[in-house]
Amino acid sequence: MGPCVKKDSMKSSAPLPREAFRASGKNIYLDHNATTPVASFVREAVVSDLHAWGNAGSIHADGRHPKSLLRESRKQVAELIGAHPLELVFTSGGSEANNTALKGFRNGDRKTVLTSAVEHPSVIRTLKYLEEQGIYKIIQIPVNRDGFMDMDFYQRHLDERVALVSIMYANNETGNIFPIKEMVSMAHEVGAQFHCDGVQSLGKSLVDVKDLGVDYMSFSAHKFYALKGVGALYIKKGRHLDPLIHGGAQERKRRAGTENTLAIASFGRMAERKDEIEAYAKEVENLRDYMESRILKEIDGVSITGKEAPRIGASSSLVLEGVDGETLLMNLDVKGFSVSTGAACSSGNPEPSPVLLAMGLSRQEAQSSLRLSLGWGTSQEDIDLFVTTLKEVVMHVRKIARGEI
Amino acid sequence: MGPCVKKDSMKSSAPLPREAFRASGKNIYLDHNATTPVASFVREAVVSDLHAWGNAGSIHADGRHPKSLLRESRKQVAELIGAHPLELVFTSGGSEANNTALKGFRNGDRKTVLTSAVEHPSVIRTLKYLEEQGIYKIIQIPVNRDGFMDMDFYQRHLDERVALVSIMYANNETGNIFPIKEMVSMAHEVGAQFHCDGVQSLGKSLVDVKDLGVDYMSFSAHKFYALKGVGALYIKKGRHLDPLIHGGAQERKRRAGTENTLAIASFGRMAERKDEIEAYAKEVENLRDYMESRILKEIDGVSITGKEAPRIGASSSLVLEGVDGETLLMNLDVKGFSVSTGAACSSGNPEPSPVLLAMGLSRQEAQSSLRLSLGWGTSQEDIDLFVTTLKEVVMHVRKIARGEI
Repeated sequence: MGPCVKKDSMKSSAPLPREAFRASGKNIYLDHNATTPVASFVREAVVSDLHAWGNAGSIHADGRHPKSLLRESRKQVAELIGAHPLELVFTSGGSEANNTALKGFRNGDRKTVLTSAVEHPSVIRTLKYLEEQGIYKIIQIPVNRDGFMDMDFYQRHLDERVALVSIMYANNETGNIFPIKEMVSMAHEVGAQFHCDGVQSLGKSLVDVKDLGVDYMSFSAHKFYALKGVGALYIKKGRHLDPLIHGGAQERKRRAGTENTLAIASFGRMAERKDEIEAYAKEVENLRDYMESRILKEIDGVSITGKEAPRIGASSSLVLEGVDGETLLMNLDVKGFSVSTGAACSSGNPEPSPVLLAMGLSRQEAQSSLRLSLGWGTSQEDIDLFVTTLKEVVMHVRKIARGEI
Repeated sequence: MGPCVKKDSMKSSAPLPREAFRASGKNIYLDHNATTPVASFVREAVVSDLHAWGNAGSIHADGRHPKSLLRESRKQVAELIGAHPLELVFTSGGSEANNTALKGFRNGDRKTVLTSAVEHPSVIRTLKYLEEQGIYKIIQIPVNRDGFMDMDFYQRHLDERVALVSIMYANNETGNIFPIKEMVSMAHEVGAQFHCDGVQSLGKSLVDVKDLGVDYMSFSAHKFYALKGVGALYIKKGRHLDPLIHGGAQERKRRAGTENTLAIASFGRMAERKDEIEAYAKEVENLRDYMESRILKEIDGVSITGKEAPRIGASSSLVLEGVDGETLLMNLDVKGFSVSTGAACSSGNPEPSPVLLAMGLSRQEAQSSLRLSLGWGTSQEDIDLFVTTLKEVVMHVRKIARGEI
């Protein structure tokens, strides 16, 4: 660093190498939609930030360092998503951010919420709860197996009874991206507000809340190489929010509780890598496309769910005929690869993915699915090793299924 | 460690010295009720636990280490408070735990909640919100300036309309301890459930939820030398809980969101210091008593709020006649001491402490208050330096107030 670099700035101008984001375990990690490794420079910063243990609300010396970390991180994360720092509320994660928006927004006495059939459980189950409480009527917009949202259905159900539309930026299983900007415009035309679950967006796409026009948007740090235990909710200036957690005046009375400055600072530090997102996202997409083309060429009976619609570059959701996804996962794990059959939050759940069922896959297809999600640390060598192993394992499992072994 | 020590066990049998819990800043820290320093052995563990970055919900190799940390920590924290591990829900902190209990409990169609006038904002404001929503009627039990809860008032208002009683274990400003065990018995006699905010209890007193008989009890790790961003809610087996955060099936469907294993593990590691709590609590109490006796002897016009009632040993709430608390705080800060005028979550708020006003102090008395809270790292030398400095500063500030300087 030159002598002109501000002492307090954590910004490093040089892009970080892939190794900085690489999983440290024994397995090759292809499950980045579940969580990401903590970037090496973030780990280092955590060690130093541990000394800022004070309460950011304290007005004595021990509160000043955590308070400045908090202020700086808020600026960094706001800058990452194109928001004003005061439009950000730090939460404990993406699920809390989604719950906060859905339970805390208000739009007169409108009683309908439009959402998609493929949202994350923290949206689907929260809305189901609100419906059971008699607070809202929930209407789910279908998404087909090609990955397209039914925009005609959306148009038909969008009227002045709709309080909120809640649609994810990118699906956590298929990677499908939905036309948020267009859907926001349509919602606003009838006076509906718009919440977007952006948890799968960070690091995979450059997101600008002002460009999208959303009223609320949720984010999570641990899907973006930072610590677990922190997320953010963007709340457009002027929009109302009842806190989910009442109490102290933190976060401008929108989220009580002593600020988790250590995790918040880790989020801020990753937010400073904004300039690297597009290049990394493109690299990851190229690798994903390379992986899919090899798989389709070298393994019979494979289809890719949601492939026709736009997708973030990190995700691939395969259906492998005649193969049980969980068996495949366990065989791949033994051979040194971490993959998933569905959302991590339903792991161990023998039920097939509700997202894939909602997209029209049969139970059998859904149960033969594998979710692969690449990250900034994934290399072509990883993918080559993976495809070769997948091929062997699929052949082996199919032979067993056919009674040939 | 001998060869018989289990490799995975983090338990260290030797008690840790005071230095392990000592604040690392330039100030002598007397604000442990706001937050505590992270214990040195916890900091070291965090550095190693950072490598368990996987999602505890993943069933591949990268999920196993965080999952085992989570399981182990749940056992450790449960053991600390005398609960069964499955009776614990990890939250993002004390405020979330309080909100979860108050918003999530159910007791038929009973509509009254009894609470005290001196609860933490995360209880008071949550209940106020529920009252505004027309869900409960809230009745506040008075606490007098000596620190005693009005048990006659409690008895008179306790009937079969009461759904829940919510009383803190120890007050965060005065340190007053309330007769939880007795109050629980009385509540249960009329079929009311009992929630206890135990955030100020850990490390200051040995708490056993079964002995107390509570139905719900809230805890926070960062008041106990562990990381911010994690707390726990004890829920007695059989008690209902609507989740505050809906979504994934984590925490047996009682709290959704990827588990913050790093912070949870820090909580577990501190929970293993259970055997040291009583000795440290006694030491801290002796130091607090020593400090108060010196202050009362050496400084005129000082009274101690809540002194007549039982108190945890860590806290001291002073009224210093003719002195503005915030001025005092800032002067002490300059001279190297971190203290507080009230709850940290209302710092920067020029309003006098609602707790002290509720206890019957005048606005002027409340504004002349200072909160001192000692910790496991506080030494007699700290206290001696502090009292000497306090004496000088109080004299100085009083002279200015009298126009003598």
